[in-house]
Amino acid sequence: MRVGVLGLGLIGGSVARRLAPDHDVLGWDPDPGTRAAAAAAGLGLAEDLTAVDVLILAAPMPVLPAVLARLDPAGSTVTDVGSVKVPVLAAARAAGLAGRYVGGHPMAGVERSGFPASDPALLAGAVWVLTLEDDTDLDRWLTVAALVTAAGGRVLPTTAAAHDEAQARISGLPHLLAAALAITGARGGPLAAALAAGSFRDGTRVAGSRPEFVAALCDGNASALAGVLEQLIAQLDAALAALAAKDTVLPLTTAGHAARLAWADPTPATVIRLPRRARTLRADLLELGAAGGFLDAVTPDGVHGRRPGRGHGG
Amino acid sequence: MRVGVLGLGLIGGSVARRLAPDHDVLGWDPDPGTRAAAAAAGLGLAEDLTAVDVLILAAPMPVLPAVLARLDPAGSTVTDVGSVKVPVLAAARAAGLAGRYVGGHPMAGVERSGFPASDPALLAGAVWVLTLEDDTDLDRWLTVAALVTAAGGRVLPTTAAAHDEAQARISGLPHLLAAALAITGARGGPLAAALAAGSFRDGTRVAGSRPEFVAALCDGNASALAGVLEQLIAQLDAALAALAAKDTVLPLTTAGHAARLAWADPTPATVIRLPRRARTLRADLLELGAAGGFLDAVTPDGVHGRRPGRGHGG
Repeated sequence: MRVGVLGLGLIGGSVARRLAPDHDVLGWDPDPGTRAAAAAAGLGLAEDLTAVDVLILAAPMPVLPAVLARLDPAGSTVTDVGSVKVPVLAAARAAGLAGRYVGGHPMAGVERSGFPASDPALLAGAVWVLTLEDDTDLDRWLTVAALVTAAGGRVLPTTAAAHDEAQARISGLPHLLAAALAITGARGGPLAAALAAGSFRDGTRVAGSRPEFVAALCDGNASALAGVLEQLIAQLDAALAALAAKDTVLPLTTAGHAARLAWADPTPATVIRLPRRARTLRADLLELGAAGGFLDAVTPDGVHGRRPGRGHGG
Repeated sequence: MRVGVLGLGLIGGSVARRLAPDHDVLGWDPDPGTRAAAAAAGLGLAEDLTAVDVLILAAPMPVLPAVLARLDPAGSTVTDVGSVKVPVLAAARAAGLAGRYVGGHPMAGVERSGFPASDPALLAGAVWVLTLEDDTDLDRWLTVAALVTAAGGRVLPTTAAAHDEAQARISGLPHLLAAALAITGARGGPLAAALAAGSFRDGTRVAGSRPEFVAALCDGNASALAGVLEQLIAQLDAALAALAAKDTVLPLTTAGHAARLAWADPTPATVIRLPRRARTLRADLLELGAAGGFLDAVTPDGVHGRRPGRGHGG
């Protein structure tokens, strides 16, 4: 398969290096230094990436709409690796690429950046969201899913809207809370800093990420994030009312404890197979993703994966 | 020195075992199984702990007022290890023990509990708050500080009120946020659970602590915690307003980033010595603690310690 990778930073560079041994990979990056580093690592480069089967856009979120608008509507399947999916989907539809576009989001760390930090093994075993809408071409979606699973990714099928809402809960919120906690802790001055230990360290850890990156991640998902932030503030308002009334916060800590334990101890996974030609495949895939399941292989006869089972766990 | 330790759980057991080689230590616990385990570990036991120089109350917070009320006002110096100090100070004053009482709080982990989890090395190098009020007998305070520093603790002098306010910021708040985040994440169902990774894991980690313990820690410090929780909610309200207005959360993430980096990279410490007979010793000690400094030795001529300096750090 011919694969183009536009943007050779941490994610794009890692993906290109992982796919290069198995596919005809061409990469490009607007930065000459990045191109030189990629060439030195053995990657083929080409400014024109239109003649590929799958084009992976690994450019920063803000430039994706402009990149999509320039693409030929009759060309290759297009996917991306951005952490927010609804705005990119909207840009793809606006560019007339609705059927060809498969939104992607590999769940990988973001502590480092740039081609020098790239690693072919970065995404091995990682959950990789691929969005599937009513107007997505299912064969193109399966092509991208086959490419990702063959490279070791676990493909989770969902819609752009469901992805962004979940992402707001499990990434946007923790980042906002970490920042707010770090600020409120610092207002306690050197005494509070001297007393701070494990719980403060854990609770503020992601505030160490680049603030511009975190703000872009939150701003780009503003609608979904505002909704879940309201839910979280309501929890804290209830705790504040309990404290002010000399009542107990035990309901909050009990529910939080149960939620944390359930998350950390998921139910066992069941192996599943969906026939590729099933009429219900689109719905079946979305149902699998909604249940927290994923694909680990796409073969000519079907898709193979795992879903959380009704095991003996909590 | 004769030292009594009432309550031989994780902290009391660890303290008694650490002090036993150097002092005449007597312990007691209302639980017969705990007493048997302590005796098997070589600790001396006595139900009557009145004839000691320093009595360490390592009983659970809720029973401390009743224990203090039963003590002989003319007896030994009394300290405790509870995580909230204002209520215990009030109980000590109510029992007529104001001068004899030195509030203590060793900053140690609380993931485990009970004498079997105790360890003489648990508190080695730990910050150990000792509260110093206008009505605290300074010689008694120095006696407790000498005992703690000789056992390897770093004594941070502060008032009960300042301790509780700082504790609310760096312990109460992280616990409430972790619970609220775990609950809000769980509302995203299996999809959100499948996508959750590092930032959610770190942000919810302390929700794994026993919910009854966390609630007691928060409820016991309700006034201070309510005040700082209001400050934190105000930060989140501002972020919510920015998101709703399609404005940016960059001011929050930038300030949070700076606060986190400053906390994780403190300025170098300067070695200090305060003459024991200085008229200003009480104020000097409190100033040291307010600056995040601590004592690591108390000798007949003075107290020795370290304070964050104006070094080359940030």
